[in-house]
Amino acid sequence: MATIDKESAVPIYLQLKRLIERQVINGSLQPHSRIPSERELSEQFDISRMTARRALLELTREGWIYTSVGKGTFVAEPKISQSLQALTSFSEDMRARGLRPSAALLRHAMQPADDEVAAGLRIPAETAVLCVERLRMADVEPMALERAHYHFPGMEELLSSSLDGSIYELLRERFRIIPTEAIQEFEARLATPPEQELLRVSAGAPVLTIARTTFDSAGRPFEFVRSVYRADRYRFVARLIREGER
Amino acid sequence: MATIDKESAVPIYLQLKRLIERQVINGSLQPHSRIPSERELSEQFDISRMTARRALLELTREGWIYTSVGKGTFVAEPKISQSLQALTSFSEDMRARGLRPSAALLRHAMQPADDEVAAGLRIPAETAVLCVERLRMADVEPMALERAHYHFPGMEELLSSSLDGSIYELLRERFRIIPTEAIQEFEARLATPPEQELLRVSAGAPVLTIARTTFDSAGRPFEFVRSVYRADRYRFVARLIREGER
Repeated sequence: MATIDKESAVPIYLQLKRLIERQVINGSLQPHSRIPSERELSEQFDISRMTARRALLELTREGWIYTSVGKGTFVAEPKISQSLQALTSFSEDMRARGLRPSAALLRHAMQPADDEVAAGLRIPAETAVLCVERLRMADVEPMALERAHYHFPGMEELLSSSLDGSIYELLRERFRIIPTEAIQEFEARLATPPEQELLRVSAGAPVLTIARTTFDSAGRPFEFVRSVYRADRYRFVARLIREGER
Repeated sequence: MATIDKESAVPIYLQLKRLIERQVINGSLQPHSRIPSERELSEQFDISRMTARRALLELTREGWIYTSVGKGTFVAEPKISQSLQALTSFSEDMRARGLRPSAALLRHAMQPADDEVAAGLRIPAETAVLCVERLRMADVEPMALERAHYHFPGMEELLSSSLDGSIYELLRERFRIIPTEAIQEFEARLATPPEQELLRVSAGAPVLTIARTTFDSAGRPFEFVRSVYRADRYRFVARLIREGER
């Protein structure tokens, strides 16, 4: 490990934090490898345990490292970066990263649209829609919870389909519906207790929530989805362009 | 108030939650107006206090309502929706919503770029950059914390400028630098204690964090910003388009 400069104007905890970040970035610390404990760091760098604790706390909060109770502290997997320009399916996103996408079906049923779903799909409230709730996984790790609502002719057929893969592929092949454009809103909040359990995150963990309406090639809304993504595993990336001068 | 259907398959807490949401959306409950207490709701609808509590808890978690200790529970302001397509300044965004933007300067100094800033600005680490830390406000409410780093000829001049308004306007007028494009990454995490204090949010509150590199009209990166937005006041909106069929 590199050293810490106690004469520097940069606080010691911040020097230690950046030193560990640098080792994660340059690969000398690999995902899931063990990080020295507070005590070990304080001895190694001759700093106080409080200082070492502060560095570890901030690294945890920013998702660089995670603690496994009774086992120690480890380097986290890099977050998955998802583009906010291209409309792609979860399955495509995961495969593009060399991960195996899958979905556990939690519930599917025809049900009346509530106000939010009706507004998303541009239909009257109480119209029958197909609701599909799934837990999305990459390899065996839970990534997101998805509650999708579909409204298109023949949607009931999906009730008897296997829904453990890409629904977009099913829609294309069986219904000639091509997801072409989407409007997506996102926000952050804390995970609810059922979300904590399904996504395997701790109490008080933040999540990114998405509300999306998806349109087919004729501009018809056919899907409204609410998804909950693990904030420790996801980041979103957007490219912004200035539209002329005002 | 409307009623609750105890024979319905929809759980009672969810009916109560949607009823309150609907009143917020249609404006019959205005921002900062008081919501009945757990006890009042349980009496009014003849439901258990646990059920009323669950509805209020979920409404709080999703940012519909907030609690002021010793005063009661109130309707929250609607979140500010920010587009992820158009590159606009915070000042423009706030003015477009009829809010008065301002900035409290927390710190500004020339300093060597650390690894992250250097990578963002595409310059060697340790190159001198101008760091500007500001608290961004709408009317008198804190909205975001911004730590911006600038690198362009003459940047030192900004040290003696008044930095309580739009830096983009300053850059345009004084340096002929036109913010033209940006790449923006965002993530969610919990607010740190200093962020809690400056943004006036409670311990354990989630925030949306943004890392952005901004390019001028010649494609040169001139700014790297890390911002922390209040998740209870902000949502981001993106339009996604499918790029051909694969």
